Amino acid sequence: MRTLNVELAERSYPIQIGANLLGQPGLLKPYVKTRRVAVVTNDVVGPLYLDAFVAGLEAEGLTVTRIVLPDGEAHKDWPTLNLIFDGLLAARCDRGTTLIALGGGVVGDVVGFAAATYQRGVPFIQVPTTLLSQVDSSVGGKTAINHPLGKNMIGAFYQPKLVLADTDYLASLPPRELSAGLAEVIKYGLIRDLPFLEWIETHLDGLLAKDPALLEHAIYQSCVNKAEIVGADEKEQGVRALLNLGHTFGHAIETGVGYGKWLHGEAVAAGTVMALELSRRLGWISHIDVKRATDLFQRAGLPTRGPDLGDARYLELMQHDKKVVDARLRLVLLKEIGKAILVDDVPLADVSGAIAACVEHG
Amino acid sequence: MRTLNVELAERSYPIQIGANLLGQPGLLKPYVKTRRVAVVTNDVVGPLYLDAFVAGLEAEGLTVTRIVLPDGEAHKDWPTLNLIFDGLLAARCDRGTTLIALGGGVVGDVVGFAAATYQRGVPFIQVPTTLLSQVDSSVGGKTAINHPLGKNMIGAFYQPKLVLADTDYLASLPPRELSAGLAEVIKYGLIRDLPFLEWIETHLDGLLAKDPALLEHAIYQSCVNKAEIVGADEKEQGVRALLNLGHTFGHAIETGVGYGKWLHGEAVAAGTVMALELSRRLGWISHIDVKRATDLFQRAGLPTRGPDLGDARYLELMQHDKKVVDARLRLVLLKEIGKAILVDDVPLADVSGAIAACVEHG
Repeated sequence: MRTLNVELAERSYPIQIGANLLGQPGLLKPYVKTRRVAVVTNDVVGPLYLDAFVAGLEAEGLTVTRIVLPDGEAHKDWPTLNLIFDGLLAARCDRGTTLIALGGGVVGDVVGFAAATYQRGVPFIQVPTTLLSQVDSSVGGKTAINHPLGKNMIGAFYQPKLVLADTDYLASLPPRELSAGLAEVIKYGLIRDLPFLEWIETHLDGLLAKDPALLEHAIYQSCVNKAEIVGADEKEQGVRALLNLGHTFGHAIETGVGYGKWLHGEAVAAGTVMALELSRRLGWISHIDVKRATDLFQRAGLPTRGPDLGDARYLELMQHDKKVVDARLRLVLLKEIGKAILVDDVPLADVSGAIAACVEHG
Repeated sequence: MRTLNVELAERSYPIQIGANLLGQPGLLKPYVKTRRVAVVTNDVVGPLYLDAFVAGLEAEGLTVTRIVLPDGEAHKDWPTLNLIFDGLLAARCDRGTTLIALGGGVVGDVVGFAAATYQRGVPFIQVPTTLLSQVDSSVGGKTAINHPLGKNMIGAFYQPKLVLADTDYLASLPPRELSAGLAEVIKYGLIRDLPFLEWIETHLDGLLAKDPALLEHAIYQSCVNKAEIVGADEKEQGVRALLNLGHTFGHAIETGVGYGKWLHGEAVAAGTVMALELSRRLGWISHIDVKRATDLFQRAGLPTRGPDLGDARYLELMQHDKKVVDARLRLVLLKEIGKAILVDDVPLADVSGAIAACVEHG
């Protein structure tokens, strides 16, 4: 097991990464405030892991409430959030109850937001079960639900007490979700860690074959990058925005086709190619750089072209993005491979051109 | 105009109290981050003040989005909160937009929660228009909506950038709402400020007649007490709980009869009498003390007996209160007049007895 810390003064917390953490419920115990916990999962992860997980907690003397949500991005909404509140109130869970999110990014985001707002805030622990949530969404305290007009529009910055990333969960992860997670892993390489990008290029086949040691390293190195950025800019006033490479384009894809049709990581991959194409058009990176990233996404089993929503619709959806401030579209682009920058003065014609060059023509 | 500060390090903010603040929109300007603001009010306050308020802001060069909510505690819920999100997204309000809550406690609580969660947090300003919100709910950063199983169950601690309490708004306040506000004013006297309690006893008739100077002093002294407590314990880990004198009983009344039938201040008055009766039964205060507070509430036009829901139902509703931790009922009681304490070991039989002694019969 490897441990690293997210340094946020009194809100600091550890990330523990390794195999067979599920078999060691004692790892969680020091981070639980009272004897009451509520484990929230979904109806795909629950049947696989919930009984064993709860049994471990009960063996540690904890009183456990179980809450099972419907699976999928399409359910990252208020009715699903309210299922958590209903369950907590029915079980009379109080302010000392620790919520535990057992699942992927959607579960983590929704449970984190429930923890941020139930009785104005209760402690929570992230137990991410997908590669995407282990390398990205479980770390850093971003929580949210979607609104029909925009992804993650309603949420809070709210840090967990602990992130427990057990690589054993990845054994049951479908290939499509493994690929989606790799999109965010590749992202860290592109924005700030060229040696890691080269390592991914070298070891991609092993990662796709779920080699445990390679997965552990990929998760660890991703979290090292994420923890450094979050520690420097918890509330995304500056450098944290760089983590959103490809996300403004990607959110437009996810919202445009309807939540849940594209996986988040898939939309990020196609969106990143758009961002790189735009960076190339601005003269910062070369055709070879764009092809290098595109090839890596393709090898990872990810889409590298977006759906043809029309340029105007893309721009409209992107205007709803949270990174828009004072009506200026702020985009994360690459100044070079391994170095991202935030810009807010790109001509819309260039943005449209890059999108048009990177959509499927059906 | 009088100003005092809520001292919360980088989240500190001023409370400005006085007459004709509405006529000075420049007072708000320094607290607005960008040129975009959204003014949220309800369909009772809006027709009276919204046009003039918005005109003032526009004269200061601000771009204003208007959002009008249905009035009343019964609408302190998710659909109403979502009206705010709909309005903000339709107008493409970004992360730099400042939300301004123009209204009473319900508007302030819902808009504050919207500000805490829209795009994970945008700045907001409280412009309370009722006595209750000016002396209590607009200060201190508690925001929330109700859940069918409990009042204020979903919310956040989220501080405003400014509270602007204009006593001119009170001219249009119905007598019943003025009385409801006085319940919280009296509360400060009971829990920690005996000289203020005596001042209220002396000047109650003038307050009921809406004497502007007396109202300004009552608001100022209430906010002094609130600001001291919030500054010492922002997130209610300790002393802040004392502000909830009568509130656990009161919330049971509000939830038990259905949100909106009793005003919050009315329920607090009746609930406070229950808390004092319980304090008397524990031997801490005298019959004379209970009668002193009861008489003051009655003079203020407030109910001093709760509805007869049955003791069991009261206790059930009180168990859902946020102050319950590890299944122990925590109550604010009076050790003496002017000195509240928090206790979690009162025998339920005594609680039931106090409730039974303080409900309406037939």
